[in-house]
Amino acid sequence: MKKYTLGMIGLGTMGRNLLLNMADHGFDVTGYDKDPKMLKKLEEDGKKHDLKGFAVLEDFIQSLELPRRVMLLVPAGPIVDSVIAELQPLLEKGDMIIDSGNSHFTDTSRRAEDLLKTGIHFFGMGISGGEEGARFGPSMMPGGDKAAYSAMKEMLEAISAKVNGEPCVTYIGPGASGHFVKMVHNGIEYAMMELLAESYAIMKTGLGYSNEQIEATFSKWNAGRMQSFLMEVTADVFKFKDEKTGNLLIDMIKDEAKSKGTGKWTSQVSMELQLPIPTINEAVSTRDLSKFKTLRTELGAAFTHETEAIADQEQFEADLENAMYFSMIVAYAQGLHLLTQASESYEYELKLDEIAKIWRGGCIIRAELLQDIYSAYKTKPDLNHLFSDKNIQDKIKGTLPGVRNVVSTAVKNGISVTAFASALTYFDALRTEKSPLNLTQAQRDFFGAHTFERTDEEGIFHATWNPIKS
Amino acid sequence: MKKYTLGMIGLGTMGRNLLLNMADHGFDVTGYDKDPKMLKKLEEDGKKHDLKGFAVLEDFIQSLELPRRVMLLVPAGPIVDSVIAELQPLLEKGDMIIDSGNSHFTDTSRRAEDLLKTGIHFFGMGISGGEEGARFGPSMMPGGDKAAYSAMKEMLEAISAKVNGEPCVTYIGPGASGHFVKMVHNGIEYAMMELLAESYAIMKTGLGYSNEQIEATFSKWNAGRMQSFLMEVTADVFKFKDEKTGNLLIDMIKDEAKSKGTGKWTSQVSMELQLPIPTINEAVSTRDLSKFKTLRTELGAAFTHETEAIADQEQFEADLENAMYFSMIVAYAQGLHLLTQASESYEYELKLDEIAKIWRGGCIIRAELLQDIYSAYKTKPDLNHLFSDKNIQDKIKGTLPGVRNVVSTAVKNGISVTAFASALTYFDALRTEKSPLNLTQAQRDFFGAHTFERTDEEGIFHATWNPIKS
Repeated sequence: MKKYTLGMIGLGTMGRNLLLNMADHGFDVTGYDKDPKMLKKLEEDGKKHDLKGFAVLEDFIQSLELPRRVMLLVPAGPIVDSVIAELQPLLEKGDMIIDSGNSHFTDTSRRAEDLLKTGIHFFGMGISGGEEGARFGPSMMPGGDKAAYSAMKEMLEAISAKVNGEPCVTYIGPGASGHFVKMVHNGIEYAMMELLAESYAIMKTGLGYSNEQIEATFSKWNAGRMQSFLMEVTADVFKFKDEKTGNLLIDMIKDEAKSKGTGKWTSQVSMELQLPIPTINEAVSTRDLSKFKTLRTELGAAFTHETEAIADQEQFEADLENAMYFSMIVAYAQGLHLLTQASESYEYELKLDEIAKIWRGGCIIRAELLQDIYSAYKTKPDLNHLFSDKNIQDKIKGTLPGVRNVVSTAVKNGISVTAFASALTYFDALRTEKSPLNLTQAQRDFFGAHTFERTDEEGIFHATWNPIKS
Repeated sequence: MKKYTLGMIGLGTMGRNLLLNMADHGFDVTGYDKDPKMLKKLEEDGKKHDLKGFAVLEDFIQSLELPRRVMLLVPAGPIVDSVIAELQPLLEKGDMIIDSGNSHFTDTSRRAEDLLKTGIHFFGMGISGGEEGARFGPSMMPGGDKAAYSAMKEMLEAISAKVNGEPCVTYIGPGASGHFVKMVHNGIEYAMMELLAESYAIMKTGLGYSNEQIEATFSKWNAGRMQSFLMEVTADVFKFKDEKTGNLLIDMIKDEAKSKGTGKWTSQVSMELQLPIPTINEAVSTRDLSKFKTLRTELGAAFTHETEAIADQEQFEADLENAMYFSMIVAYAQGLHLLTQASESYEYELKLDEIAKIWRGGCIIRAELLQDIYSAYKTKPDLNHLFSDKNIQDKIKGTLPGVRNVVSTAVKNGISVTAFASALTYFDALRTEKSPLNLTQAQRDFFGAHTFERTDEEGIFHATWNPIKS
């Protein structure tokens, strides 16, 4: 009887496309789904490779070669737990479960720990690239037992995106590090998307650009140093016609953004680790704010604001390009700084150069800029913050007059730039040698006796600022 | 044998001061602490009232009248659990435990649920006012079983701060609502403190003010519409001389701010509830950023920036006053908006007018402005957002040119204004009827098939933006 190299549980778009990708690369793979329609779809799409799936879990598991490789692409949350519970009695020591969904990293930690006792290897693997990535080459972030990874390495490298012939997959680290890194990837993605939305608002409201001009600007940017998947997508969006109305579809879409949670998780974890990523936070918040449409309409009428025309459009567009490039750097810098801290706090042993390297292709945040980021961490693997890299510093310096002008102009014109402003204030906070937070410490000691440290002497001090009457 | 009305566990500054406050108001109270030094301190400070404490928990519990009122003022976290575990076998049905520390509201929920089975009432009560508040009148936020609250009402009202003769305590709501409201109080406090720190930075770096001028400005502000405890404290800080050096102490304090966690919790919960409080988030982040002193020093040298002198100091100071007042309103607005959402999500049945009312005195964020906020929610108890109140709108309108100028000037001058900028961009996001996040939805549908809604038709839509090659 034929035995398969890998079995996929969950044959939705992502799972099916990954299987097709594996089959394209010559692997004998199969799938399982409770839904007969999904099985049928797999057979149709995979006709060329005679791809077939199972409707009975026991048969599916028995069809896999030992040690078994079972990949899950099911919705994150309790479904993952129930699938694992169903699988457990059917699997043997040495078998491997690879959760390739967007699970929260703390769930992955817990599951890995639970399965460790049974001898089943558990991998949490982040995948980025959307439908097309899954089909033709995603970026993959697998974390878990390193020895077990060797059983997956060949296949993952084969199906991954390639940049200069190098695969966009690498062993990330122990435990839940794979899902953690994917989560932060998504946090960076949130920031980038919000920055693009703000660029759109500035072009539309500040510069008075038409959709055609907006498309042309994003296309021009994508042809330069900001070349990236998200920039390309953005330009393409402004070309796409709505069949029904003949308008550009962008103008027919509601301005209330949804989210799936990975951005929120990134912000929450960063708060826990006390490692600030304010631009990602603002991106998450701004999506949530957009949902208060009724309030926005009401307050828009209550607080009208005249936008002044921008005199020198060409110069301002150049400033905006600088603002966007600056803020892109900040978005990556914050995400990577969080990874540095997480690596220490959770003992993930992350190699940031490797992570930047596998993000260069296949994933949603792939960008020309990642080549520079890769170089920065390759040159200095223990680089504490991206802003410390000399090459990045040179790139930032040229953008500063532009970003300062864009934020200041937007703020005067009432155009909300939550992410641009926070990128700049974050940068300025980090280049302020003498911060005003000595005042914060004084206040805390004043009303809460929380003590303070001194600049001229080691130790913990408390002052009787305002003697309490007794 | 004499029986006491209430017993306090934990005789540190807060617990001891609260007991002294109760004794001042004629209540027979006692305390318990494992540390004999704390018992001695209580006896010393409470000589006038013959206040005594116990070193043996059983004796302490036996000394309390039925139903027993046991208040905890011990460090938040596992210590609260271990104290409850010790207490449980000693207490009877109908007795009451009041946790008055800064416990996380989810811990309070869990403890209340656990104790419910035993018939012991559990109250989570937030207290604000610091040492002096505890001693002479704090603001208190008790949440839990309403019937049980009646046994505490008289005493709490007696010891609380008063505003126009009205006590700064009220029954907040069921479950952990008391601790939740106190947590949000602290979140607002973080934002206010950061805004004051940024005002300080702008006066010092932008306006070139001396400490004396800074003190005078904060004092002037405190004499006006921004009258508040934190403003008063801030002005006082700039008067306080360091004994050792003879300098003002503020200049000898390290510019790295610490935090105890309540701000972070507020931000994390707001992310969970998808109810944005970006200015509080920035305040939390900026404290955390301040701790990267080495990086700040390094980047300060790498990215020097010349500050341009501000021509019209008087006008700019007036703008700064407007910016501060505007941002104070925003800080409260965000906190209260979060309470509105929490009340719905957790069924807390919060009365926001009552909360604003008890915050007017005793607590750290007490401020003249809370009178207006109280009126806003009194007039319209279901007010969705503070910005919707007509009176608040009028106050905001006058501040807008000022805050726009301050943020724009700071940004051009490289002075980091994380909180000011986020207050303004938040406001602008909420007054933007047509947001650019239709682009976000387009992008999400483009690369992730996440679907979108249309402006001209109900339903969920998906477009084939970029047909995948198969």
